[in-house]
Amino acid sequence: MRILGMDAYKAVIEKRDKRQFEDRPISEEVLLKILQATRMAGSGKNRQTGRIVVVESQEGRDSVAGSGDFGDWIKEAAVALVFAIHSDGGLRPDFDIGRMAQNAMIIANAEGLSSCPMTVYRQQELRDALSIPDEYDVPMVVGIGFPAVISDSKPPRSHPRIPIEDMVYRETWQDKT
Amino acid sequence: MRILGMDAYKAVIEKRDKRQFEDRPISEEVLLKILQATRMAGSGKNRQTGRIVVVESQEGRDSVAGSGDFGDWIKEAAVALVFAIHSDGGLRPDFDIGRMAQNAMIIANAEGLSSCPMTVYRQQELRDALSIPDEYDVPMVVGIGFPAVISDSKPPRSHPRIPIEDMVYRETWQDKT
Repeated sequence: MRILGMDAYKAVIEKRDKRQFEDRPISEEVLLKILQATRMAGSGKNRQTGRIVVVESQEGRDSVAGSGDFGDWIKEAAVALVFAIHSDGGLRPDFDIGRMAQNAMIIANAEGLSSCPMTVYRQQELRDALSIPDEYDVPMVVGIGFPAVISDSKPPRSHPRIPIEDMVYRETWQDKT
Repeated sequence: MRILGMDAYKAVIEKRDKRQFEDRPISEEVLLKILQATRMAGSGKNRQTGRIVVVESQEGRDSVAGSGDFGDWIKEAAVALVFAIHSDGGLRPDFDIGRMAQNAMIIANAEGLSSCPMTVYRQQELRDALSIPDEYDVPMVVGIGFPAVISDSKPPRSHPRIPIEDMVYRETWQDKT
């Protein structure tokens, strides 16, 4: 039994979007923690119209991968979380989905898993494949799995962040020269 | 000095959107942790076009509050984070903003602070007030502050979540009857 989990700041700060996975399933226990994290994300006016289709089958993940333009890596993920939100989901449905997805990915990170979002480019294909009702938008997917062991000969690409002083303005937008 | 921070799962699961604040500033140290959390959020194709205007002055927060339809509570927050994203920010800019905002709110929660998003209804007004260039969308704000002590006579409204079995489907969207 584990007493202490990962520190929240560490789980947030050290999260990187990664999409190279080991061929190994995620336990139901960990998956449930990830889903609870999405469930507890706040939503606009507390509408709670976000839904998730948890896709673990190879056939299902192949369909999900095909709905994106850069989604082949989803075929190798242990699980794809397909986010659906009712078209009555308010002015900023993608914001709510972003909150849900980030919660999922932070907890995945805290559990030692890798994850990455995938943009859906062909929503109707995805709805058809998973029998999702037409009144739901399916803008985004998150793929999750155990991180692949990367050989030294092919190191992962680094994505350094811009400096914080280039990202943050104080009180008003001032020129940074 | 604090050795251990809040557990990641606890920080995520117990986060609630709250907008009643004590009149008390946030330390620069804590604000910087919150901003670092937003900075480390992944972005579509690693574009990193999200920016933040940190508004702490009363005059500034009054302007921010006025750009929303339900924003008066922003006047009482210690700080308003105004999220701006370049109009070239990809297909799903609000998703990226949602990821940034959720990171901020989770770390705020881990630091004992309350927070809540506000939707911007009058973006041009907000851009004008904060001198934000026109090519940036300013869809959302997050207000953060120390939680108000709520008297027993006026308990906070509860926002229970729907059961997980009403939110999650497995493999395909199946009727839940």
